[in-house]
Amino acid sequence: MVETSLKALLFDVFGTVVDWRSSITREGQALGRAKGLERDWQEFADRWRAGYQPAMTEVREGRRPWTILDVLHREILDRILGEFDIDGMDDAEKDDLNRAWHRLDPWPDVVAGMGRLKTGYILGTLSNGNVALMVNMAKRAGLAWDAILGAEVAGHYKPDPDAYKKSVSLLGLEPGQAMLVAAHNGDLRAAAACGLRTAFIRRPTEYGPDQDFDKEPEEDWDFVADGFGDLADQLGV
Amino acid sequence: MVETSLKALLFDVFGTVVDWRSSITREGQALGRAKGLERDWQEFADRWRAGYQPAMTEVREGRRPWTILDVLHREILDRILGEFDIDGMDDAEKDDLNRAWHRLDPWPDVVAGMGRLKTGYILGTLSNGNVALMVNMAKRAGLAWDAILGAEVAGHYKPDPDAYKKSVSLLGLEPGQAMLVAAHNGDLRAAAACGLRTAFIRRPTEYGPDQDFDKEPEEDWDFVADGFGDLADQLGV
Repeated sequence: MVETSLKALLFDVFGTVVDWRSSITREGQALGRAKGLERDWQEFADRWRAGYQPAMTEVREGRRPWTILDVLHREILDRILGEFDIDGMDDAEKDDLNRAWHRLDPWPDVVAGMGRLKTGYILGTLSNGNVALMVNMAKRAGLAWDAILGAEVAGHYKPDPDAYKKSVSLLGLEPGQAMLVAAHNGDLRAAAACGLRTAFIRRPTEYGPDQDFDKEPEEDWDFVADGFGDLADQLGV
Repeated sequence: MVETSLKALLFDVFGTVVDWRSSITREGQALGRAKGLERDWQEFADRWRAGYQPAMTEVREGRRPWTILDVLHREILDRILGEFDIDGMDDAEKDDLNRAWHRLDPWPDVVAGMGRLKTGYILGTLSNGNVALMVNMAKRAGLAWDAILGAEVAGHYKPDPDAYKKSVSLLGLEPGQAMLVAAHNGDLRAAAACGLRTAFIRRPTEYGPDQDFDKEPEEDWDFVADGFGDLADQLGV
């Protein structure tokens, strides 16, 4: 291995590990077929995702108590169902649709790359997704995490420093022994400020073909990779 | 599968999954060879383990703030090193010996049995061991946990009810959708009182050949099994 003092790789998940946009679009299309609805399901996915940061900000800034992402996702869903003029769904159907976030597909390089990375490092989630969401996603997608860490166990949403610091300390490590792996420059900046090492993964179509941000690294990150296989190559595992 | 409403198996670890007594005895013997010391290393293992419940009681009863098991293990070690008249170890050597608890070997049926159980259920730890201890043990021993739960993430040591309740709620489950798997009747009684289902695993030599407690189930537990393969048979996975 190249980096012998590095013990753990901690991963952003939405966008970095899984392709939320295609997966939520697919779930919307299935709903459309079942209900006979024609809608722009990519726009539906984008609008659902767009509610994510504002909802967490309410928690981060103390205007509401700790609330897991499944609950925030459900509140956003209730709103966008109205915006897209979708009615006639009962609570069980809405709950099932909300769990689409538990059924996201990984990018094609992820499962094989994680298998290699796992031989050299502890692999943990450092996501804003709650534990149940991460565990259910992993079982379905074959993501071999060693530990589910991140926002819920830390009690803080990224990019609050405590989300990173608590995840590292739960592993009994110093920040410099852990590396955040993420497709988002802002997430890496927050991790670097806490002393973690950084790996930028290019996911240039996370937000679709017209994505115009986070396509390239904006800082001198420790590693820059085109997927998890490339990261494993660079780490020598 | 026999139990379709059951979603997660949560495991006691020390004694149920791993054979702490043989493993700590082996580490003591290695220390003895390295330092030229003749001691009763089984007695050393038993005395180290005997300090475990009283140390946690200090935390459970609020006489000291939350303290992870690695720290409690180290304090007990410092005391028993004196009792066994072992000196000449520097802090790094003591820290390494303390991490013997991260290097415990599983019982022979565990790894294969967990592989079967994992096909049907979420597998989580529900141990008093801290997250780093559980993760390091799992990496070394090949324990394929889906989630590391239990005392540290709950902020409560078993048998406090919150240790069980919080572990289940982190998975987004109701207590009756989870089952504690343990070799200890007292642990199962506490889990059952929280609404979890129960599986007793016979580990009749956990405390050595003269063990005279927890050899057999003391209540009408949902399952009673001779190891994890037998439990997988009974669950139909």
